[in-house]
Amino acid sequence: MADYETVKLEIADGVATLTLNRPDRMNAFTDQMVRDMIAAFDETDANDDVRVVIVTGAGRAFCAGADLGSGGATFDYEKRLEARGGGKFDPDRARDGGGQVGIRIYESLKPVIAAINGAAVGVGATMTLPMDIRLAVPGAKMGFVFTRRGIVPETLSSYFLPRLVGVSTALEWTMTGRVFTSEEAKERGLVRSLHAPDELLPAAHALAREIADNTAPVSVALARRMMLDMLDAGHPMEAHRLESRLMVARGQAGDAKEGVTSFLEKRTPVYPDRVSTDMPQPYPWRPTPPFRE
Amino acid sequence: MADYETVKLEIADGVATLTLNRPDRMNAFTDQMVRDMIAAFDETDANDDVRVVIVTGAGRAFCAGADLGSGGATFDYEKRLEARGGGKFDPDRARDGGGQVGIRIYESLKPVIAAINGAAVGVGATMTLPMDIRLAVPGAKMGFVFTRRGIVPETLSSYFLPRLVGVSTALEWTMTGRVFTSEEAKERGLVRSLHAPDELLPAAHALAREIADNTAPVSVALARRMMLDMLDAGHPMEAHRLESRLMVARGQAGDAKEGVTSFLEKRTPVYPDRVSTDMPQPYPWRPTPPFRE
Amino acid sequence: MADYETVKLEIADGVATLTLNRPDRMNAFTDQMVRDMIAAFDETDANDDVRVVIVTGAGRAFCAGADLGSGGATFDYEKRLEARGGGKFDPDRARDGGGQVGIRIYESLKPVIAAINGAAVGVGATMTLPMDIRLAVPGAKMGFVFTRRGIVPETLSSYFLPRLVGVSTALEWTMTGRVFTSEEAKERGLVRSLHAPDELLPAAHALAREIADNTAPVSVALARRMMLDMLDAGHPMEAHRLESRLMVARGQAGDAKEGVTSFLEKRTPVYPDRVSTDMPQPYPWRPTPPFRE
Repeated sequence: MADYETVKLEIADGVATLTLNRPDRMNAFTDQMVRDMIAAFDETDANDDVRVVIVTGAGRAFCAGADLGSGGATFDYEKRLEARGGGKFDPDRARDGGGQVGIRIYESLKPVIAAINGAAVGVGATMTLPMDIRLAVPGAKMGFVFTRRGIVPETLSSYFLPRLVGVSTALEWTMTGRVFTSEEAKERGLVRSLHAPDELLPAAHALAREIADNTAPVSVALARRMMLDMLDAGHPMEAHRLESRLMVARGQAGDAKEGVTSFLEKRTPVYPDRVSTDMPQPYPWRPTPPFRE
Repeated sequence: MADYETVKLEIADGVATLTLNRPDRMNAFTDQMVRDMIAAFDETDANDDVRVVIVTGAGRAFCAGADLGSGGATFDYEKRLEARGGGKFDPDRARDGGGQVGIRIYESLKPVIAAINGAAVGVGATMTLPMDIRLAVPGAKMGFVFTRRGIVPETLSSYFLPRLVGVSTALEWTMTGRVFTSEEAKERGLVRSLHAPDELLPAAHALAREIADNTAPVSVALARRMMLDMLDAGHPMEAHRLESRLMVARGQAGDAKEGVTSFLEKRTPVYPDRVSTDMPQPYPWRPTPPFRE
Repeated sequence: MADYETVKLEIADGVATLTLNRPDRMNAFTDQMVRDMIAAFDETDANDDVRVVIVTGAGRAFCAGADLGSGGATFDYEKRLEARGGGKFDPDRARDGGGQVGIRIYESLKPVIAAINGAAVGVGATMTLPMDIRLAVPGAKMGFVFTRRGIVPETLSSYFLPRLVGVSTALEWTMTGRVFTSEEAKERGLVRSLHAPDELLPAAHALAREIADNTAPVSVALARRMMLDMLDAGHPMEAHRLESRLMVARGQAGDAKEGVTSFLEKRTPVYPDRVSTDMPQPYPWRPTPPFRE
């Protein structure tokens, strides 16, 4: 397993736990964290032993937002590039770091569960949006505070937030920039359920086990991408075409034979197929478009 | 009225009741049921006396899913074709049967209410998604169990499920493949309301009567398709164009004169226009695309 | 400030209150109200002192719907044009008046809060849909009654209603044409919160103050349009591109420096940038398409 500077990755019993690991800075988000998170998801995708990824934070926060160590220049991409000695600045190539992580999570072959153990503010809140399910502790501070910092929503939040909580709540939260609690997040549908601090990771693991213990890995990877991709469908016929093609491909595979047979025999299934080798081709059927058109 | 092998269609007082009718097999879904359901919706569409369609199941289940009588070969489309002596298999033409029913329901000219009287699992759950409103009995078992059978979500569920319950619940239900109760379905927004077994059909009928007793049939057919089609709009201007065109067409029709006049005179309206003859042309304004592009 | 015939516009402390002002007609909607509302939003957009717009009704209703003074000819666009002496009728150019207001609200540079002080029926209900947040008094009658008048849903409701309350409730409300209360609207997610009549405007003002007192005006205008536009995105990468470009543009602006610095110094921010002069260009990045293609 790779060593990361700003995160920790632990794999046990089919579940990878990715911990944001800058507890002295409330796990504030940095360029290094962008690289580390992307590499960690590359690792969980490549490892067939990983069935589910849980993302959480070390210490008392989940992620308090962008590291504001550069003060007023924090969001000045040109100055930040200069400070790194990074050559000529091209505004058309400058990319939001949170969004890069978001796209990587979107592409994950494994389900991703956010276990929000404390404050999740700014990018700390938006990075959870491309994750599949959000659990949180009671009283966790959350906020899409961008309009209170003079900047704009990022990390794919303009895409995911209205789809997760409805456009009215998305507008209210981003236009007020309010800091609210996980209770409000639960009430508005962003967070699935609340759990006492010492029950948060167990609850995330219980959900992970439901997947790891009962389902076919290739089916899960496909179902995840189907639900995400068809959010963008222009007609239900697109879903019918995709579902038909994938059903033909998987219906004759070993997983389907085992899935039905084990069900009829009332025994635990042992699925033969692996994500690394048995995804129906072409996969992805809709490649992620490049950043520059 | 036509006779069907696997379903029963009864029409009374403007309401058609379509009953899945293989109670000894818990109304398990078959190729014959695909044909019967499509033909039944052709019949309800063609009959101006039908204002609303209610779909329910005979016996104790709504529909327990695909008929697994073929065991491990159930979802092997090539083998199933061979078994029927059906000629050369073309994977690009093989179509999910549930999806064909789903597209037909999507195109219905009449509102469709699901009265889920018992277990609705697999295609038994997904076939209700293109229906307009779902009522259920308490404690009904439901589940999008595809990942537990080694296959993938079907029957347009990749399109409808995230739109009905949000992408996070759609991911949770399909990735865990969990069997849950109608109570959870109600809490997550899939089911509108729960009703004791002997009150389920009366509740569906009460809702049907709200439509049949008060509204103009052509307006209802148009409103239904407008809401469904505009889910796929690329800009609100598309809705403004469509609404303007349809408002011009219907605003000068007899239904509008009767609708406003009866309202002002506080009497029950008697709408003159019929779905079979008075839909504004072209209808549908957005034809369903063919299966193969 | 301009004088309007059918509405009243008052601006104080950064908040514009737009009052539908035909109380003797329950603020019934007319062609003059279309022109007045559009002009009022032009005025609030052009005035940097306006941070938020609140829309409410004079007297006991919010808006009881289209003015039915023309009886059975109310929705006959050709006859209405004739009655005004308006030249030759072109059905392809006839535009739903509510939809024109809806498009104008969609384009607003300022947040729009609906304070529903009483009955909101027909266009009185649909005109609130392109507004950002809906507050209401308990017991307010609401209804998408178009199918009970022989016409069709309008004012962008085929676009907004399924996105705000889900397609199933959108279908139920428009296909039954039922008149329901603000309690049902709250339960189904259309209305954010209910407030006693004398607490309605104070609640709307409190929400407005959260925005006006804490956020950067340019950031709010951008966040609003980002959330609305990305509803139509065909892939999350579109959001990543847009967010990256806007973050680069705003991250180096005075607002971002002030936003971060004031936060670190725990003082109230004083944002230097103005909507009238400092929106990143091109704005809008996705122009509203013309009515005729």
